[in-house]
Amino acid sequence: MSNHLKEFEQYRTRMNARIAEIDHLGIKRFLNLDSSAYREGVLDAKTKEMLGLVASMVLRCNDCIDYHILQCADAGCSDEELYECFNIALLVGGSIVIPHLRHAVESLDLSRQRGTQNV
Amino acid sequence: MSNHLKEFEQYRTRMNARIAEIDHLGIKRFLNLDSSAYREGVLDAKTKEMLGLVASMVLRCNDCIDYHILQCADAGCSDEELYECFNIALLVGGSIVIPHLRHAVESLDLSRQRGTQNV
Amino acid sequence: MSNHLKEFEQYRTRMNARIAEIDHLGIKRFLNLDSSAYREGVLDAKTKEMLGLVASMVLRCNDCIDYHILQCADAGCSDEELYECFNIALLVGGSIVIPHLRHAVESLDLSRQRGTQNV
Amino acid sequence: MSNHLKEFEQYRTRMNARIAEIDHLGIKRFLNLDSSAYREGVLDAKTKEMLGLVASMVLRCNDCIDYHILQCADAGCSDEELYECFNIALLVGGSIVIPHLRHAVESLDLSRQRGTQNV
Amino acid sequence: MSNHLKEFEQYRTRMNARIAEIDHLGIKRFLNLDSSAYREGVLDAKTKEMLGLVASMVLRCNDCIDYHILQCADAGCSDEELYECFNIALLVGGSIVIPHLRHAVESLDLSRQRGTQNV
Amino acid sequence: MSNHLKEFEQYRTRMNARIAEIDHLGIKRFLNLDSSAYREGVLDAKTKEMLGLVASMVLRCNDCIDYHILQCADAGCSDEELYECFNIALLVGGSIVIPHLRHAVESLDLSRQRGTQNV
Repeated sequence: MSNHLKEFEQYRTRMNARIAEIDHLGIKRFLNLDSSAYREGVLDAKTKEMLGLVASMVLRCNDCIDYHILQCADAGCSDEELYECFNIALLVGGSIVIPHLRHAVESLDLSRQRGTQNV
Repeated sequence: MSNHLKEFEQYRTRMNARIAEIDHLGIKRFLNLDSSAYREGVLDAKTKEMLGLVASMVLRCNDCIDYHILQCADAGCSDEELYECFNIALLVGGSIVIPHLRHAVESLDLSRQRGTQNV
Repeated sequence: MSNHLKEFEQYRTRMNARIAEIDHLGIKRFLNLDSSAYREGVLDAKTKEMLGLVASMVLRCNDCIDYHILQCADAGCSDEELYECFNIALLVGGSIVIPHLRHAVESLDLSRQRGTQNV
Repeated sequence: MSNHLKEFEQYRTRMNARIAEIDHLGIKRFLNLDSSAYREGVLDAKTKEMLGLVASMVLRCNDCIDYHILQCADAGCSDEELYECFNIALLVGGSIVIPHLRHAVESLDLSRQRGTQNV
Repeated sequence: MSNHLKEFEQYRTRMNARIAEIDHLGIKRFLNLDSSAYREGVLDAKTKEMLGLVASMVLRCNDCIDYHILQCADAGCSDEELYECFNIALLVGGSIVIPHLRHAVESLDLSRQRGTQNV
Repeated sequence: MSNHLKEFEQYRTRMNARIAEIDHLGIKRFLNLDSSAYREGVLDAKTKEMLGLVASMVLRCNDCIDYHILQCADAGCSDEELYECFNIALLVGGSIVIPHLRHAVESLDLSRQRGTQNV
């Protein structure tokens, strides 16, 4: 089984470094603003990451789904909580979301394996 | 100031009744499935409504935003919690969401006034 | 009850005339190509209009929905056939389509009343 | 030439089995509702699959396109009928659909080869 | 003829003031970042506004279209240049953009009248 | 490093030839209309290609991004001008565009290498 999650993380790291090199002020500020939006505040980080995950699923972006699944796992979301997120995304976004549901379930499984390998 | 929230609720009630009359099995089942997705479960109803709200904002549907703001208000979300949701939706969805941010802020204000009038 | 279908048709007629005045070759060719796509061919006009209707519903454009409902009615679609289209659009597009389902049901009802008034 | 259609079917089968294991009531009900929407009814299965195909194309989901092309082929759609569907999807959805038109044409060709291999 | 452009500007002014009152740091930073993106830089302001206009049209947001048409007019775009933008948006986004083309043409006409009234 | 830009160009060439074979009048006319929209006119070809690029980024289509980056490079856009386009697309489309920003930056780098190899 190919590990799309690991490939995504490597590509993300490499290209984020390249984008940092470009050093465009507007892009840098946007990326900083994006990171800070998910920090613990009036809502806790776990809730915010689930909001980011559902938004990514209904907008149907696999890379964004992978990113938020990893963040949700790190923030302590259980599988059952994430299945609830998947269900809401499926209902809001419709059957066009099904391929992304498959991707999300695979990414969640891979993220749990990664977690175990890290021990 | 016109009250778009009240107009939305009246239109929604009238047309939902008309859709019930049509009595299409698939449509009825979808609408039932939709209602049940937001019921308290592994995630509480408040979290689920915020997920629905952010999904509605990034997909840019004012009627869906109005529906979930009313549900969020009923589920006990504070203004500050909803502003956090607005912020995440704005970042994920970009400046194209700004007109819906305006709408959401107005609807939230109207929903609080409605709450007071109900006392 | 306001008649949004009549307003749409009047606005459409007025603005199409204004667009014709502008006389931009690319825009004119696009609009001609669009009209010809729905003409009877390997698929009959009725099937093509239903394809246009479902596409308009999942892309969530009320004016496009109104246009194709009027075309579907003219092409001889029954209410029951259009409810099947609504159901497929709802499933593919998800609950975010619900406000457009309400709109489509209202427009279909209005289009039938219009039909009767024409007798 | 890689056969993306075969890869899609294998991935789809594997992940649908995994989603069944998860056994989330809402997700299961949604998937059942989705299957039943395309069954012969007031509209025949062939028309319904073409509706699903055009919806998938304008929403620009390659996996959904592959699924509906296979279903359309099984339901007896001719190449010429499917080209008409592609044309309507292209016009409604615009040039942003062109990469998905390429994908759909390739998938249709592959589905016809697959059909021959099955004899 | 109702003037939707004037209504948009009044609503925008009123709600932007209300959003400023809310004083959410993330939202404020996003709105500042948005304004600064269109300032003269490597590309001139006129080109940037046309980029914003076409993006708004393919994403099918009438309020965003109105905003960028006013900005394009202020930046010195001619009608003919804007018709070229409309044409590209129509081709990229497809016939689903047609209702927004009508809106854009009307807004452009209204923006020119407004210009004359200001003398 | 795999060269996705070269793969895209080969696939595009092969499938465009196959689409030409199909010889569907509507599809052919659409593709001709699409090519002619970007030709020098009231706006120069460079500006038009940047409009196409930003539209492709906010609609989040990697193949379309690759196509317009190659066209922008041929039309003489500098890296700095394209970074400005990326920035506007990111702001309008939001963080869901970030994976496509990564793709665009990689494609731009690859297009510059290709250019050098052609000498």
